[in-house]
Amino acid sequence: MTDAPVATAPNPEQADPPPYFTAHVFVCCNRRPDGHKRGSCAAAGSEALRDYMKVRAKELGLKGVRINQAGCLDRCEFGPTLVIYPEGVWYAPKTREDVDAILTAHLQQGGRARHLMLTEHDVVPKG
Amino acid sequence: MTDAPVATAPNPEQADPPPYFTAHVFVCCNRRPDGHKRGSCAAAGSEALRDYMKVRAKELGLKGVRINQAGCLDRCEFGPTLVIYPEGVWYAPKTREDVDAILTAHLQQGGRARHLMLTEHDVVPKG
Repeated sequence: MTDAPVATAPNPEQADPPPYFTAHVFVCCNRRPDGHKRGSCAAAGSEALRDYMKVRAKELGLKGVRINQAGCLDRCEFGPTLVIYPEGVWYAPKTREDVDAILTAHLQQGGRARHLMLTEHDVVPKG
Repeated sequence: MTDAPVATAPNPEQADPPPYFTAHVFVCCNRRPDGHKRGSCAAAGSEALRDYMKVRAKELGLKGVRINQAGCLDRCEFGPTLVIYPEGVWYAPKTREDVDAILTAHLQQGGRARHLMLTEHDVVPKG
């Protein structure tokens, strides 16, 4: 016998727990004063879109999907904005029809509503 | 020449954009009335912990990390709760020292503060 390290199977306790939600949606509902140069998602109507999205997700019977409001996601210029994790895909819905497109294409079918997606080019203007 | 489909390189426009944040932290700041049977994260002190986490993340110079408040994450019984995406790891910090442990172990070193993690066994009691 020696004191050499013994190879062991991977310790399952070291793996992360399974995802608690299949899709976790965060809708920015930050509100700034009227006239703020960056605007804000709430001022652009995000709260009503969040409410609609929650109702429609429930009506569609989407399992494992959680729709949450969030504080400022810092992409105000493109608001209303939302982000879906774990995939980290961002959208900028303006209307209920846009929300429907995201619910159907992304959350129901596992695809993307590409015409509504933010990309790496949608960055906060400097200065 | 035929009308057979032509093999094409993957369309880069079909890939998701790169992550906008390296780590996106959502701290539940939902507040229910005192005495609610599920309690709430805000009633358990989450707002002060969020404020502290934002300040400390900035002081530590963590790049690409965003600390946000969120509405009810629906794991109220274990609150205050937070979740870090894209990895989808949940924590239940009670104190500033717990927040420091998460900042250091997870966000700074890329590991886990395992003693503070929620697991698949931390589920909402039925009934």
